Amino acid sequence: MSNLVSFDGRVVIIGFGSLGPGVLPLLLRHFNLDASRVTIITAEERGHDIADKYGVTFINDPLTPENYRDRLIPLLKKGDFLLNVSVDVSSLALIELAWDVGAFYLDTCIEPWAGGYTDPGLSPSQRTNYALREAALKLKAAGKQPTAIITNGANPGLVSFFTKQALLDIARDTGMETTVPASRQQWAELAQKLGVKVIHVAERDTQVSATQPKQRGEFVNTWSIDGFVGEGCQPSELGWGSHENHFPADGRRHDFGSDCAIYLMRPGASTMVRTWTPTEGAFQGFLITHNESISIADYFTLKDGDTLRYRPTVHYAYHPCDAAVLSLHELAGKTWRQQPKQRLMMNEISAGVDELGVLLMGHAKGAYWYGSQLSIAQARELCPHNNATSLQVTATILAGMVWALENPERGLTEPDEMDFQRCLEIARPYLGPVLGVYSDWTPLERREELFPEDLDHGDPWQFKNFRVV
Amino acid sequence: MSNLVSFDGRVVIIGFGSLGPGVLPLLLRHFNLDASRVTIITAEERGHDIADKYGVTFINDPLTPENYRDRLIPLLKKGDFLLNVSVDVSSLALIELAWDVGAFYLDTCIEPWAGGYTDPGLSPSQRTNYALREAALKLKAAGKQPTAIITNGANPGLVSFFTKQALLDIARDTGMETTVPASRQQWAELAQKLGVKVIHVAERDTQVSATQPKQRGEFVNTWSIDGFVGEGCQPSELGWGSHENHFPADGRRHDFGSDCAIYLMRPGASTMVRTWTPTEGAFQGFLITHNESISIADYFTLKDGDTLRYRPTVHYAYHPCDAAVLSLHELAGKTWRQQPKQRLMMNEISAGVDELGVLLMGHAKGAYWYGSQLSIAQARELCPHNNATSLQVTATILAGMVWALENPERGLTEPDEMDFQRCLEIARPYLGPVLGVYSDWTPLERREELFPEDLDHGDPWQFKNFRVV
Repeated sequence: MSNLVSFDGRVVIIGFGSLGPGVLPLLLRHFNLDASRVTIITAEERGHDIADKYGVTFINDPLTPENYRDRLIPLLKKGDFLLNVSVDVSSLALIELAWDVGAFYLDTCIEPWAGGYTDPGLSPSQRTNYALREAALKLKAAGKQPTAIITNGANPGLVSFFTKQALLDIARDTGMETTVPASRQQWAELAQKLGVKVIHVAERDTQVSATQPKQRGEFVNTWSIDGFVGEGCQPSELGWGSHENHFPADGRRHDFGSDCAIYLMRPGASTMVRTWTPTEGAFQGFLITHNESISIADYFTLKDGDTLRYRPTVHYAYHPCDAAVLSLHELAGKTWRQQPKQRLMMNEISAGVDELGVLLMGHAKGAYWYGSQLSIAQARELCPHNNATSLQVTATILAGMVWALENPERGLTEPDEMDFQRCLEIARPYLGPVLGVYSDWTPLERREELFPEDLDHGDPWQFKNFRVV
Repeated sequence: MSNLVSFDGRVVIIGFGSLGPGVLPLLLRHFNLDASRVTIITAEERGHDIADKYGVTFINDPLTPENYRDRLIPLLKKGDFLLNVSVDVSSLALIELAWDVGAFYLDTCIEPWAGGYTDPGLSPSQRTNYALREAALKLKAAGKQPTAIITNGANPGLVSFFTKQALLDIARDTGMETTVPASRQQWAELAQKLGVKVIHVAERDTQVSATQPKQRGEFVNTWSIDGFVGEGCQPSELGWGSHENHFPADGRRHDFGSDCAIYLMRPGASTMVRTWTPTEGAFQGFLITHNESISIADYFTLKDGDTLRYRPTVHYAYHPCDAAVLSLHELAGKTWRQQPKQRLMMNEISAGVDELGVLLMGHAKGAYWYGSQLSIAQARELCPHNNATSLQVTATILAGMVWALENPERGLTEPDEMDFQRCLEIARPYLGPVLGVYSDWTPLERREELFPEDLDHGDPWQFKNFRVV
C-alpha cells in the first residue's frame, strides 16, 4: 500500500506531541507528499529533531486566539489540508479558518482553547464534550465546504467504524438477514432490532516499561498527558440509553441540544465502571468523557416525534497503561493539580498491547467485543515514531484524510457519518489483529459474594450494574 | 546494641513468609540465641535456604485446627517463646496452647484459621477485626499467664507507641504542661485536652523495582500478599470518634462489645480516604481495616458511665507501594478473586522509603505526623532479609519480645498497654529517621474547584471530609 489518494496540496500540522511525529511518516508514505509541502506549527521544541530528519518545516510558535489567523492564513490555500493534533488550539476556530481559505480539516477531538476543559468559571455542563459537540453541530448547520472532519482518531473515530462492523457481525452470527444499512435511521433500526442496549469503548492498554517505573510527581502515559488530564478532569459523560431505569443520583441532563447524553457531577478520572476485553477479561476502567460516547448514542437514536424509541447507552471504559493508572491515582490525591513532570512513553516501552475495541451488549449472544489488539512490537515494525496507542490514532487520521479528499464536499463531518468500510480498509494494515470475540460476561458476574450491593438483577445491562464509583 | 535480654528458652516461629526471615537475624543478634534453640514451622518451602544458612530447624508442615496441638506441644515448655508470623494459623488457638505449656506468645495481628477473613458464611460484622479483637479480649478476661502479646507489628503495634509520643510532643509544642500519663484514663484525658479528633495511620510506601514491573495476573507487594488481600477483603473499619456528626450511609455498628468502632459495608481495598505524610504531602490511601484502628480508639475512650465523653476517630490511610496499588486495582476488576501469581518484592527493589506514622489532627497546631521514614537502602544496611516495610515490623516484634520477657506476667496484652518508651528504645535503631512534622493540611484543601461536593465546612475533621469512596 503506497499512494492512496491524489493530492498535490500542502499539509499544515498543528501540534507535534504524541501524534504529530507518528502521523508524519504515514502522510509522506501514502500521499506522495514531498516534505517541502508539510509545515508543522507547535508550541514546544519536542519533535524538532524528527521534523528535521524528514526535512519538514518546524515552527515553534504557539497559536492563540489572537495570532492564529495571522499565522495560518499565509500557509493555506484552497485544497490544502489543515490537520489539528494539538492541545489547546480551538477546533472550531480552525475549522472556520479552513473553510475561509478552502482547506480541508481534520481533528481527533473537539479541542477548546487553553483552559476550556477545566475553567472553573464554566458550569460543569459547559465543560462537557456534549457542549463542545453541540457547538460543532451549530457550525455544521452553516453548510460550508470543503469537508472538515472532527473527532477522528482511534477513539473517538475508529471505534465508530468498529461499531458498525460489530453490528453486521452480530446480525450475521444471530442469523438476522441484513444488507449494509444505507442511512442513520437504518443503522439505528439494526441496532435496535439486534437488542443492543449498551456499547462500551472497552480499552486495556498493557504497554509497560521494564526500565523506567513511574516516579513520584510524574504523569506517565502512552499518549498526550495534557490531553488525558484535560479530559479526565471534565465531567464524566455517557450516552444515555432508552433501556435505563435508574438515573444516577449525581447525573445531570443538559438544558440544550439533543439530550442524547448525560454527565455526572464528578471528573471522569475518578469514575470507574466494569467492562471486558478478550485478553484482559473482566476489569475496571475509567469512565472518561469522550466524544464518541455522545456521537454514537446520538447516531443510533430512534425517535417518534419527540418520543425516544431507542438509544443505546454508550461510554468509555478505559484502563490506560499501568503507569497512567498510577498517575491518575496520584493526580486525584493532589486534588487534580497536575504533576510537575510528565513523560510520554515511547522508546522505553518494553512490552504490551493496546487492546481497543467496542463491546456491544444486550443482544442475543450477550456481549461482543470488536477491535484492535496492536502490540508495541508490531507498531514499531509498521511505522516509526509510534507506539501501539498512537498508531491506532494516526492510522485513523490517515484514513480520515483520504476519505475527506475522496469526499470533498461533506462539510463538517463526524466519523459516524463516514464510510466505515473504506476507512477500515485504509487503517486496518496498521491496527494489528482486528477481530471480534463473543463473551458471556455481564457486570453481575461474581457480585455480592462478600457484601450486598444495590444491583438490578432483572436487567444486567443497567448502568448502575456497571458502575463502580 | 547486642544482647537485650536474658533468655535461655527456645523460640518456635510459625510461618516463614514475609516476616520470619527478617526477624530471625534480629533474634539471633539480640537474644544470645543459639540457632539450635530455634524451630520454624511453616506451610511452604519458601525460606528453607535462609533457615539452612542460619542452621535453624525448618519444618514444612502446615498447621491446622486438627494437628496444631500435636505438632507444637512437643516443641514448647515453660519459658519458651511462640512467635506467630503466619497467615491462616489462629492466634487465639496458639495463645491458649502457649498458656497451657507456660510459653510466651507474640503475634503481629489476630489471625483466624484459613478463610476466616473472607468466609461468605459469616456476616460482615463477624468478618471484622473488631470481632476478632472482641474474641481476644474475652480470652484476656481469663487472666492466664505468661504474657501473650497480640497485634504487635508496625501497624498494628509500633503506631500505638508513636501515638503516645506524638501526644507528648504536641503537649510540649503547644505549651501544655504534662507528665507522661500513667494510666489509660490519663492518656485519654491528655488526647481530649489537646483536642485530637482524628488519628490516621498515614503510610506511603514508595518502594519500587526498576527492573520488574508488575505483570498482568500478578499481585506484587512489599509484605505478605495473602495477608494484604485478606485484610483488604474484610469490611473497611474505623474507630468512630465522639466528634463525628455524619454517620456514613454504608456504616454499621456491631451489636456486641465496646462499640468503639464501626464498619462499612464494603471491602477496605475499595475504600479510599485523603491523608498526608511529610514527604508525599497530600495523597489518597486505602481505608483497610487494621486492629490499631479499634484498639487505639478504644484505649483513648472516655466515658461517664455509659455516656461517651471522648474518643478520636482512628483509621488506616494506606498507600502501599505502586505495584500493590496496581495489584489492588486489578483485584477489584476481577471481583476480589486473587491473581494466580504473587510476588513479595525484596531483592528487586531499587529504591524507595516506607514512610509510616500517625497523623494526629484537630489540635491547636492542626495536624502532626510522627513516624518512621525507613529507606530500602538503610533497611538493607541494618538487617538482612528485610525490606523497609518488614524491618519496621520485625524491629517491633523484637521490642515486643524483649518487653514480654521483661514483663512476664501481663497475660494477654495489646501494644497500647505496653511501655511505649521502652519499646521505641529497642525498635528505634532499626527504623531509620523517626521524626515529627506539623502541617496545616486539612482534607478540605483545594476541594470543590471543579465540582461541588458534600462537605462539612464547619469542621474539617469530620470523616465525611476525608472519605473519597
